[in-house]
Amino acid sequence: MKADAKPGLRNEAGLRALLPELSARFGGRLQTGEAVRAHHAHTTTYLPAQLPDGVVFVESREDVIDAVRLAARHGVPLVPFGTGSSLEGQVNAPSGGISLDFSGMARVLSVSPGDLDCTVEPGITREALNVALRDTGLFFPIDPGANASIGGMVSTRASGTNAVRYGTMKDNVLSLTVVTADGEEIRTARRARKSSAGYDMTRLFVGAEGTLGIITSVTLRLQGIPEVIAGGVCQFEDLEAACNAVMTTIQLGIPVARIELLDPVQIRACNLYSGLAHAELPTLFVEFHGSKASVDLQSAEFSAIVTEFGGSPFEWTVDAAERARLWKARHNAYWAARALAPHLDAVSTDVCVPISRLADCVSQTRADIAEHGFLAPIVGHAGDGNFHVLLLFDGKSAEEVERAEAFLLRLNDRALAMDGTCTGEHGIGQGKKSFLAAELGGTVDLMRQVKQALDPEGIFNPGKIF
Amino acid sequence: MKADAKPGLRNEAGLRALLPELSARFGGRLQTGEAVRAHHAHTTTYLPAQLPDGVVFVESREDVIDAVRLAARHGVPLVPFGTGSSLEGQVNAPSGGISLDFSGMARVLSVSPGDLDCTVEPGITREALNVALRDTGLFFPIDPGANASIGGMVSTRASGTNAVRYGTMKDNVLSLTVVTADGEEIRTARRARKSSAGYDMTRLFVGAEGTLGIITSVTLRLQGIPEVIAGGVCQFEDLEAACNAVMTTIQLGIPVARIELLDPVQIRACNLYSGLAHAELPTLFVEFHGSKASVDLQSAEFSAIVTEFGGSPFEWTVDAAERARLWKARHNAYWAARALAPHLDAVSTDVCVPISRLADCVSQTRADIAEHGFLAPIVGHAGDGNFHVLLLFDGKSAEEVERAEAFLLRLNDRALAMDGTCTGEHGIGQGKKSFLAAELGGTVDLMRQVKQALDPEGIFNPGKIF
Repeated sequence: MKADAKPGLRNEAGLRALLPELSARFGGRLQTGEAVRAHHAHTTTYLPAQLPDGVVFVESREDVIDAVRLAARHGVPLVPFGTGSSLEGQVNAPSGGISLDFSGMARVLSVSPGDLDCTVEPGITREALNVALRDTGLFFPIDPGANASIGGMVSTRASGTNAVRYGTMKDNVLSLTVVTADGEEIRTARRARKSSAGYDMTRLFVGAEGTLGIITSVTLRLQGIPEVIAGGVCQFEDLEAACNAVMTTIQLGIPVARIELLDPVQIRACNLYSGLAHAELPTLFVEFHGSKASVDLQSAEFSAIVTEFGGSPFEWTVDAAERARLWKARHNAYWAARALAPHLDAVSTDVCVPISRLADCVSQTRADIAEHGFLAPIVGHAGDGNFHVLLLFDGKSAEEVERAEAFLLRLNDRALAMDGTCTGEHGIGQGKKSFLAAELGGTVDLMRQVKQALDPEGIFNPGKIF
Repeated sequence: MKADAKPGLRNEAGLRALLPELSARFGGRLQTGEAVRAHHAHTTTYLPAQLPDGVVFVESREDVIDAVRLAARHGVPLVPFGTGSSLEGQVNAPSGGISLDFSGMARVLSVSPGDLDCTVEPGITREALNVALRDTGLFFPIDPGANASIGGMVSTRASGTNAVRYGTMKDNVLSLTVVTADGEEIRTARRARKSSAGYDMTRLFVGAEGTLGIITSVTLRLQGIPEVIAGGVCQFEDLEAACNAVMTTIQLGIPVARIELLDPVQIRACNLYSGLAHAELPTLFVEFHGSKASVDLQSAEFSAIVTEFGGSPFEWTVDAAERARLWKARHNAYWAARALAPHLDAVSTDVCVPISRLADCVSQTRADIAEHGFLAPIVGHAGDGNFHVLLLFDGKSAEEVERAEAFLLRLNDRALAMDGTCTGEHGIGQGKKSFLAAELGGTVDLMRQVKQALDPEGIFNPGKIF
C-alpha cells in the first residue's frame, strides 16, 4: 500500500514560474504557509501526508478557469479539495502542485422544486445543502457519513447508508460543469431527467477523483422530504439469517431507505460506548420513508421477513426521539469502535460484493480478524453488499502496519474472488491502485487512454487511480 | 436531417482484402446477398438506407474478437446489429463495411436470483429474456416498446414506459464485456451492485451506439416480479392539470411504475382504432407494482392527487383482463396513430425536458402541429418529461419532407430552450447529429477525444453520433 503513495516527479521549474503568477492573480487567496498546506494534504489513513506547494482559495468559476490555464501553461498539478474527508489519499499531492480549496465556492445557484433538482457549487457540504433546501420540502438523500462536499462526493462516486433506496452519486447527478485541460468550461448534460444524447460524460466525471477536469457546478436530483420516517432494529442468531432477511427485502421490492448491518464486535463496542444492552449478535438497523400508511405497511412486511428468518421481534417507531434511541448504536458506531482502543490508529476500509456473498465475505473476514488477533468491528450497508472494516492497529509499529496491510490485501482478494469490487464507495485514490489492476485488468488500460486523451499533460490530480 | 446521413468515404481496398478473409473464417455465416444486406440497413425513419457490404452472423465471443481483428487490420467499419428497431439510423452503413448480426448470440449465460442479476449475450431480446427468467420470479423491467435486443438497448441507452420507477439502461447495466479496437475483450466492472473503482467504463459504453467497441455480454440488474400489478386511467381538462398531477406524484415519492400521457389527438386515434369511447382529453395511464396492500395504497394516494387537480375519477383495477381493457388505448397507441392515415409515412421523434416544462413543451408543440396542419399524435413518458410526436407525412413528397424536417428542428429547438435534450431514449444515430452539437457544444469535442482515443482508426460504427 505505501508503495502506491510514493512521491511523483516534481516540476520545480514550472512551480517557480507559476507561484508568482498565481500570487498576482489571487493575492492573499494563494497561501503557501506550511500549516495551510499540511491541512490540505490531510489524510484519514496511514498514508503519508504529501503537501501541495500552495493552496488557492477559489471563489468563482472564473477563478477555476484561470487557475487551470495558469497551471496548464506551466505543467503544474492541481489537486481539488472539498473538506478533506476522503479516505484513500485523494487530496495528497505526491508530485507537489497547487491545492484548489472549494470552501469559498459553496453557493446554491438554483433550486427547481417542480423538477426536483438544484444546481450548486462543488464546495457546499451535504449538510449545508440540506439546510438550504429545508423550506422547499426537498432534500438531497446521499449520506456518506462524513459531512463531505458535494464536489468531493461526485468525484469519489460516494454513497452511504441510504444508497439502497436512492442510489449513489452516479444516480443522482444530472449534469456537471467542468473546466477541462484546455481551460474551457463545458457542461456535460442538460437538466432533463434522462437523455440518450451521445456519450455519458456526466458519469465519466462522476468517480474520476478530479483526474479529468475540475468541477465548477453540480446539478443534483432531489427527493421530497418523507412525510414520515420509521426506524427500527432487529437481531439474528447468525450472519446468514441477517443477510437472507436483507436479500428477501430487496427481492420483494420493499423500498427500504436504509438497512445497516452491525457485527457482534461492533455491537459490543456500541453497548460499551453508549450504555446500551443489545445482545452481541448480528443486528440490522432499518429505516423506511413515506406516508404514515406506507411506512406502516413497509414495517409490517419487513417484520414478517424478520420472523421468517428467526430474527428477534422487529422493534420500530415513527417517533423521532424514540427512533434516535433505537438507532443510537448505529449513529455512534464509528466513535464507539474507536473507543475500544483509543490509543490505536484506525483504517476504515471498504469492499462490496454481490449481495448473495455478503454473509460469506463478512464471516470469512471475521475469521481472519480472529485468527490474526485484530480488533476490527464491521459495519455494512447490507442492501448493497457493501461493508467496512474499521481496523484498529498501532501505526507507529512497522510490524503492525505490515500486518494491517497484509490483512487488507487478503480482504480485497476475498472480495474480488467473490466477483466484488475493492471499493464500493471510497474510491481508489492512492491506497487502492494495486487492487484496481487486480479487479479490472485490461480495462485499466482503457481508463488510461481516456486520461491521456482528456489530460495529456497530466495536470489533474496526478498519482490517483493510476 | 438528410445531410446527417450522407455517405462516408469507403475503404474499397480494405474491403476487397477483408471479404475473402471473413469468408475463410466464417464460411456461410458471411452473407453478401442484397436482400440480407438491405435487411441489415433497415431504418424505421425516412433516412435513406445505406447497405453494408456484408453481414457476419456471429455466434460467440471468439467470432466477435476475430471479426474485430480482421476488420481492424484492414480499416473496415463494423456496424453491430440487434433487431433493427433503432429509430435514428444507428444500423446504417454510410461508409459501407460489415454488419455484425447478433441474433445467434442470444443466450442467457447465468442468472443469480439471490443477487437479482443475470448475464446475457447481447442478441437476446427483452421479451425472450423475460420468458427465460419467468421461473425465477424475476424480470427485466426496461420496456422501450419494440422487442429490441439487449445489446441495442444498452447501446442507445434505451428506457421507455417504466423508466420512471426502474430507471433507464444506464441504471440497469452492472457490467459489460466489450471487444475493443485492439481486438482484446475487456470487462468494465465486477458484479457488485455499486463500485467506486476508477472511471465508470460501463456507463461510457452504455449509450455509445457501438462507436467505441463491440459488446459481447451484458450483466443486468433484475427485479422481483411484482406480486400484484394495478393499472388505471384518468382524464384531465387540460395538459397543465395532467402534468401537475404527474409532478405531485413524483414529488410525493409514490413509486408509480408507469405514468403515460396521451394527448387528445392520440386519444381520438385510439377511440377510432379500438372502438373505445374515451373523451378526447389529455389522459394518464398509470401502473403500480407491489403487494396487494401496497398497490391499494399507491392507487388511493394517486386517486387523491387526481381529484386535487380536477381529473376524472381514477378508474383502476388489479384484475389482469380488466387492466388490459383500461390500458387498451395505450397498448395500441402506435398502430392507432398509424391508422389515422395508413397511406402516409411516420417518423417517431423524441425529446425530453425538465418535468416542470412538460406541459409547456407539449402545448407549444400541439400549437405548432395545428398551425402547420400536421397530423401528429403525442405520447409521453410523463414521469420523466419525455415525449414522442408521431409525425405522419408523405415521404414521397420533397416538400412534405422539408416541412417535416422544419417541424423537427423547431421541436428540438423548443426542447433545448427549456434546458431539455434532443433525445430522451432514441439516441443520436445519424438523425440527430446537428441537434447534439446545439445541445452540448464543446462537450461534443470531448466526446470526439474519447472516440479518437478508443477507436483511433474509426472502425466502430462510423458516421453515428458525430
